[in-house]
Amino acid sequence: MNFHNIRIVLVNTTHSGNIGGVARAMKNMGLARLYLVEPRAFPSEEATWRAASAGDVLETAVVCDSLEKAIADCQFVVGTSARERRIPWPVLDPRACAAQIRQRAGSEQVAIVFGREDRGLTNEELQQCNLHLNIPTSSEYSSLNLAMAVQVVCYELRMQLEAPRLPVEADAQWDAPFARAGEMERFYVHLEEALAEIGFLDPEAPRQLIPRLRRLFSRVRLDEMELNILRGILAETQKWVRRAQDAESGPGNNQ
Amino acid sequence: MNFHNIRIVLVNTTHSGNIGGVARAMKNMGLARLYLVEPRAFPSEEATWRAASAGDVLETAVVCDSLEKAIADCQFVVGTSARERRIPWPVLDPRACAAQIRQRAGSEQVAIVFGREDRGLTNEELQQCNLHLNIPTSSEYSSLNLAMAVQVVCYELRMQLEAPRLPVEADAQWDAPFARAGEMERFYVHLEEALAEIGFLDPEAPRQLIPRLRRLFSRVRLDEMELNILRGILAETQKWVRRAQDAESGPGNNQ
Repeated sequence: MNFHNIRIVLVNTTHSGNIGGVARAMKNMGLARLYLVEPRAFPSEEATWRAASAGDVLETAVVCDSLEKAIADCQFVVGTSARERRIPWPVLDPRACAAQIRQRAGSEQVAIVFGREDRGLTNEELQQCNLHLNIPTSSEYSSLNLAMAVQVVCYELRMQLEAPRLPVEADAQWDAPFARAGEMERFYVHLEEALAEIGFLDPEAPRQLIPRLRRLFSRVRLDEMELNILRGILAETQKWVRRAQDAESGPGNNQ
Repeated sequence: MNFHNIRIVLVNTTHSGNIGGVARAMKNMGLARLYLVEPRAFPSEEATWRAASAGDVLETAVVCDSLEKAIADCQFVVGTSARERRIPWPVLDPRACAAQIRQRAGSEQVAIVFGREDRGLTNEELQQCNLHLNIPTSSEYSSLNLAMAVQVVCYELRMQLEAPRLPVEADAQWDAPFARAGEMERFYVHLEEALAEIGFLDPEAPRQLIPRLRRLFSRVRLDEMELNILRGILAETQKWVRRAQDAESGPGNNQ
């Protein structure tokens, strides 16, 4: 997928701030090509302010006087659609839609078209699209802000791009290797010994103490550094037990 | 997953407009519980204006004077994190994170914590979390607007909720049944006949015309109504051919 083959097209945007918000959302996700079909006002201070560090996206934006011109050279056109249409068109959620765009945006020109803030795209505009895109929303309040809708779609494109690189496991990038079962067994022996020494574990009536601690540590999956820290704490604790025992046995014994 | 068990926590928000944007993003995706830790200004006109029809989310928002209080009763706390941290914490992208929240938010209280506009959450705040969430961005410009970040995360929660209902195929909801192979074969016979009658197909030298038209129609997967329309067009075309042939054979023949 080549992001340079993907353009975002905004039709008749009313609020200039939204154009800036769209530019920022695009640049955050790595997209750069913005087309504006008859915006009410452009360029504008409000757009520039909301774009923050995405001013370059606004500077290179292409202003067109019709949707036809904005998409004329595109081989795949996706139109965002909020409502059910009289004639159903092929429609997908942003994720499935991004997967289709990924397949096409290697060598083809792709446009994703967003409509007016208050009433989206017209039926005539939607019928110029190969595919419709619908963002799932709550039925109680389904009207997304324009820049938010662009953010969600651009985020899904980014997820497609990063999918091979994203960690599947939360701890995939860790700074220490995870402990091996043999090390864990030696730790449990040490733990049991230390707990007995401080009198927290009664070897005659151990109850469920050790199984519960085993469950805790196996659930958390200790790394080697954490294991060393815990064994260090046990060793230091044992020293204090011996120091106290030595002290209590009286000075006479040592002299 | 019970959305009422999920709260969005904003820490030290500077721009009131963002609080309104967050409220709207939440309500669009079906979330309602907003916690504000020491916002610079709240309530505010700017927040109310940006919230649009999500004023109720602002009205029921809980203002706290510390993060500890905002999350005290939560069993699973997720913190959004932009940068690499000195001590790596378990970290996931919004999608994998939403899948984890789905598993927990049936009966447990879940908080998703977002930091300041300019510098996110502090290390101390991040260390109060069970899991960190990172939104993939372009390396060129990685700083998402606060409300946009909330939108992406709430969208992923919505996708988790709707997953069983979302169509897998773009044409899953269609207004006519798709044509069967037998009907298609009768159509191809009719098509070939009509193309020969109008002289576009030479039965002696058909070349690749019929295979190419077969490929076109099999790729598009016609529905029964479309098939009827096309057969109607063929039948009307054939009538004109016969009418012309009749007219050209002269009036004498009919009288």
